[in-house]
Amino acid sequence: MELVLESGVVRGDGRAREQFYDSRGYGRPVAEGLELAPVEAAHLLYRSDIESVRDAESGESLDFRALLSSAAVSEIDVLVYKDLRDRGFYLSPARDGWVDDPSGADFVVYPRGNGPWDEEVAYRVRAESERTAVSAASLGESVLAVVDEESAITYLETDYPTVEGTSGLDLPTDVEADLLGDRVLVWEPPSRLYHEGFYGQPLDDDAGKPLQLSLVEAAALAGRGVLEVAGGEDAIVECGREVEGERFDRRLAVYRALRDRGVVPKTGYKFGADFRTYADVDTVDSLGHSELLVRVLPADHACSPRDLALDVRLAHGVRKRMVFALVSSSDSKTDIEWLEVGRLTP
Amino acid sequence: MELVLESGVVRGDGRAREQFYDSRGYGRPVAEGLELAPVEAAHLLYRSDIESVRDAESGESLDFRALLSSAAVSEIDVLVYKDLRDRGFYLSPARDGWVDDPSGADFVVYPRGNGPWDEEVAYRVRAESERTAVSAASLGESVLAVVDEESAITYLETDYPTVEGTSGLDLPTDVEADLLGDRVLVWEPPSRLYHEGFYGQPLDDDAGKPLQLSLVEAAALAGRGVLEVAGGEDAIVECGREVEGERFDRRLAVYRALRDRGVVPKTGYKFGADFRTYADVDTVDSLGHSELLVRVLPADHACSPRDLALDVRLAHGVRKRMVFALVSSSDSKTDIEWLEVGRLTP
Repeated sequence: MELVLESGVVRGDGRAREQFYDSRGYGRPVAEGLELAPVEAAHLLYRSDIESVRDAESGESLDFRALLSSAAVSEIDVLVYKDLRDRGFYLSPARDGWVDDPSGADFVVYPRGNGPWDEEVAYRVRAESERTAVSAASLGESVLAVVDEESAITYLETDYPTVEGTSGLDLPTDVEADLLGDRVLVWEPPSRLYHEGFYGQPLDDDAGKPLQLSLVEAAALAGRGVLEVAGGEDAIVECGREVEGERFDRRLAVYRALRDRGVVPKTGYKFGADFRTYADVDTVDSLGHSELLVRVLPADHACSPRDLALDVRLAHGVRKRMVFALVSSSDSKTDIEWLEVGRLTP
Repeated sequence: MELVLESGVVRGDGRAREQFYDSRGYGRPVAEGLELAPVEAAHLLYRSDIESVRDAESGESLDFRALLSSAAVSEIDVLVYKDLRDRGFYLSPARDGWVDDPSGADFVVYPRGNGPWDEEVAYRVRAESERTAVSAASLGESVLAVVDEESAITYLETDYPTVEGTSGLDLPTDVEADLLGDRVLVWEPPSRLYHEGFYGQPLDDDAGKPLQLSLVEAAALAGRGVLEVAGGEDAIVECGREVEGERFDRRLAVYRALRDRGVVPKTGYKFGADFRTYADVDTVDSLGHSELLVRVLPADHACSPRDLALDVRLAHGVRKRMVFALVSSSDSKTDIEWLEVGRLTP
C-alpha cells in the first residue's frame, strides 16, 4: 500500500481506508479511499503500522524521523495525538470539512469506544507548547493540552462558570472613616458591616475595635454611600491607582460584580490570587469554606501555561476552583467574562 | 507623665523609662529618660497605656487615631509591631544608634522572654505592604512581614541556601540528535544518558525508543560535546531565545550551575517553577522525591509579595523548598545568587 503526502494531506487507497479508518478511526474516508492528516500518518509511522510515506513534491520516502523533522507536522501535535491514542481515545484532526466546527481546536476527541463515525464528542482539544502564551479570551470551550519542555502533557479543562451566591446585606450609610496609606479605618463600625457583610477585618477580636477595610472594599462601600471619607470614593480609588494603576480599577470592577451577584470576595493574597470568594455568607461566625480563587486579568491577557499550571495546581491543593475574571473596559462600560480552568485527566 | 513627639522621636522622662523600657522593652533609654519611636508610642496609645502624645510642632495632643493618620508613622509598621507584640515578643525599631546593624530591617525582634537589654536577636524583620514590590536582591538576611490588603500579616523567612548534591555522570560524546521546533530528539540514545544522568524523557517506556531533551538540557549537553546537532549549541540556544528571549539564557545558566553542583534539574512546569531538583540521583529507577523548586529571575527583579506567597505556598504544599536563582550577567561572566524563601510562624 502506498501513502502519498501532497499539499498537507496523506492519501491512501481503499485498503488503507479499511485498515486505518474502518477499524481504528484514522483519517477521513473519501471516494477514492482515505485521507490522513500528517499527524495521523506520523503516528502510524511511529507505531510501524506503515513503513514510509512518499513526499509527492520531493519524491523522497519519509520515515517517522523524516516526517517529524519536516514542516508538514508539528511535534506538539504529534505528542498530544500519541498521548490521547495511548489513553485509548480515537480522535480526528480539527480540519475544515473533517469535523463539525473545527475552530478553536486542534483535535476532536471521541468518547472511549466511539470514533469519527459517531456524532458524540468527548473533548475539543487544543495542543500547545508550554512556551506559547495562550490568549485567555480564546479559552472556555476547549481542553488545553500543554506539552511541557520535557514533553510531559497535562490537560486543562476550560469553562464558563456561573458565578453567583446568596450573600447580601442591608448596608448602613454615612459611616465615618479615615483613608490611611494603604487601607481605610472605620473607628466606630456598625457591627453588621463585618459580622453579617464580611466587610473588612477588625483590628482586634474584641467588640468595639476599629474595622480595617481594604481599598477595594472601601471604594465599593463609598460608592454606595456607606462610608464618609475625606475625598470620597475618588480619593480611595486614587490611592489604589497610585500603586496598582489600572489593575486597581479592574479589581474594583470585579469586586463590585461579585458583590452584585451575592458573592463575597475577600483577599486571595495567601493563595497568590486577587480574591477568594464565599457564595453564601450569613454571618461571619458560621462562615464555610471559600469556593473560588479569582484572578483578575485584562481581557486581552495572554496566559503563560506555566502560570496557569501554578494557579490551577494551587487551587486544587486547597480544594477551590480557579476562576479568571477577564475585564474589558471602554469609556461607557466594563465587561467581565468569567473563565474557569481546572485539571483534567482524560 | 507627658510624652512629646519632636523630630520623629517621642520623648519621656525617667518615670516613662521605668514604666515602658525597664519592665516592657519599649524605646531606648537616654540620660534624660526615654526615647520612643512613633510606632512604639502608637502601640502604647492603642493599648491605652498612655492617653496622648503632644506634637511639639503643632502643639496638638495626638490620640491613636490622630497619630496613625499623621505622617509620623506608617500603618504597616504599626500593624506589624502590634502583631509581634501580640505574639509575645519584645522588639526594637531598627534605627541608627538604637540597634546594632539596623540596615535592611524595620524591627529587631528578641527571643521570647528577652528584650533590648540582651544581645540575642531572634529575627530581623522588614514590614511591607503586599502592594509594594520587594527587590529580590535585598532579601536573604531578614524576615519579610507582609501586610495583605485586608491587614492580615504573613511572615516569610529568607535565607542563602547551600545548593549542592552528589549527582554526576561520565557523559558520552558525539551522540546524534535532531533539533525540532521546541525540543531535541536523540534517536539512538546511550542508555545511561536517561537512566543514570536523568537527561530527557524517553518517547515511550520501552527500551530503544528515542529520547526527548528539553532545549536547556540539549544546549547544556551540546556545550559539553555530548550531542551532535546541526548548528550545534548555538542553534539550540537560538531556538530557545526565539520564544523566551534572555530568559532562556538565564535558565540555561542556572541549569548548568545546578549540574555543576551535582544537582539534577528537571522541569518545574507542573509546579509553575522553572526547575524541580534532585540532589542525589543514582539511577532514575531509584529516584527519590525532588527537594527544591527553583524559579529563575534576573538579579534586579522586584518580587510582588503576592507572587512570593503563591510560590512559597505551593512549594510548602508539595513538601519542597522554594529557591530563587538570581542571575546577573555581564559580558564577561554570569553570577548566580541563591535565595530561599519559606513560611515562618514567629
